[in-house]
Amino acid sequence: MKLAVIGLGLIGGSLALDLKARGFTRHVIGVENNPQHASIALKKGIVDEVLPLQTAVEAANLVVLAVPVNIITTLLPQVLNYANENTIVTDMGSTKGAIIASIANHPKRANYVASHPMAGTEFSGPTAALYNLFDGKVAIICDAANSHPDALTIVAGMYKTLKMPLHYMSATEHDMHAAYVSHISHISSFVLALTVLEKEKSVANIFNLASGGFASTVRLAKSSPNMWSPIFAQNVPSLLEVMDTYIDKMQQWRTQMATGNFEAVHEAMKQANAIRKIL
Amino acid sequence: MKLAVIGLGLIGGSLALDLKARGFTRHVIGVENNPQHASIALKKGIVDEVLPLQTAVEAANLVVLAVPVNIITTLLPQVLNYANENTIVTDMGSTKGAIIASIANHPKRANYVASHPMAGTEFSGPTAALYNLFDGKVAIICDAANSHPDALTIVAGMYKTLKMPLHYMSATEHDMHAAYVSHISHISSFVLALTVLEKEKSVANIFNLASGGFASTVRLAKSSPNMWSPIFAQNVPSLLEVMDTYIDKMQQWRTQMATGNFEAVHEAMKQANAIRKIL
Repeated sequence: MKLAVIGLGLIGGSLALDLKARGFTRHVIGVENNPQHASIALKKGIVDEVLPLQTAVEAANLVVLAVPVNIITTLLPQVLNYANENTIVTDMGSTKGAIIASIANHPKRANYVASHPMAGTEFSGPTAALYNLFDGKVAIICDAANSHPDALTIVAGMYKTLKMPLHYMSATEHDMHAAYVSHISHISSFVLALTVLEKEKSVANIFNLASGGFASTVRLAKSSPNMWSPIFAQNVPSLLEVMDTYIDKMQQWRTQMATGNFEAVHEAMKQANAIRKIL
Repeated sequence: MKLAVIGLGLIGGSLALDLKARGFTRHVIGVENNPQHASIALKKGIVDEVLPLQTAVEAANLVVLAVPVNIITTLLPQVLNYANENTIVTDMGSTKGAIIASIANHPKRANYVASHPMAGTEFSGPTAALYNLFDGKVAIICDAANSHPDALTIVAGMYKTLKMPLHYMSATEHDMHAAYVSHISHISSFVLALTVLEKEKSVANIFNLASGGFASTVRLAKSSPNMWSPIFAQNVPSLLEVMDTYIDKMQQWRTQMATGNFEAVHEAMKQANAIRKIL
């Protein structure tokens, strides 16, 4: 199996490391616009060679796109143009609707499997790539009926190698649930950072009063704007909906505190505690 | 040094474990209303004996209150009543203004040092107690001028044993900064949990779309309502202020998304990324 990975960042890099270490592929071709990232990826042994897009796709059996979602919608049609009849293509994007729309009528649509591994860290670039990033996390496959069964088998094999259980759903469902769970977490963390940075002019006060609780809640606010801005842009309606619910709940909490209704605040926390049973 | 710890939960229990293991005290007396918690604390070796409040305070050189802040305001005046002339008293509460007000005019005010270790986890009770919880975290001492120098020395020695650097500020400053950094983190996490639980009726969807990012952002929503409701109640004005800023930022973000202004969203994330330099 010859693997081409487009985008040698946290996700593409980590994927390449595990798939090679676990024998899924013997040869990894990287495609990377940033020459510094390409050089780090070669040095770190993430890829065996770095090639231009077309050459890489033509040489590969499996092509994985691991670039920001706005770049995926641009590159995916080209990748399918370059792909041979039996080349399988998948992507790691955090949205699925817009990406699938970009190749919906492509003659090689069935070569493509829309997928999303629910894994990552707040860091980016090939220096952030690490082994075992995906182990035990869930991967989602979307609109599987529009992919060729052989393509689904290969991609399922890739995720099995990454030790990721698979779940199947439509792209519409995926984007909605991703907004309701993952994307809103990022927004609430970014907004927390903005709030604390505005209220606290002194870095020392943030540092001294931080504790582990603040650090964990604000961790996602370190995430890459280049990656996340396009994700939000491709998932506006579901995000507006969940942000409205969030703002509404925060405003209710504020009103309860302002009116001294701490029974209601206590009750809200007890309700929120239900998350213990899930995570 | 005979130590009495009032409240054998996460904080009181962890404190007792380290202070004994590190030789700061040879004998730890526990005070605990919950008989099950008392029995676990004895079995785990967190305390050497469990005594009623008055007997414990009368026997101790140092008394540490580690109960919810609304119980601290009730117990602290009694503890100072029972205290001998040389008994030192401190507390672990996450608010300081209301606690200090409860003993502002007490004849033994100077025996008391108002403090707050910036450490914890989302778990509670003596089963959650663990060694090294405080190492390297910051502890705050408030209104130090109102405490006797000997009392400050003893409490500073305790925090040195816990390996916590000390910072000094007024109770007013403490409560404001705690609201702006720590307390708002908890509220944003609770609100995230409430939002996701409302939008996602299916536990499976939360679980599958969760990823590590959601888990870390929502972690604090597992925290104890009995502990946090009184903290919020004792810090209303600063919390309303920081919640207003938070809601405002979230609404700005929503407007930018609704109007397709992703340059502004990108810029907001870049600003939020400044938190990387602090944490």
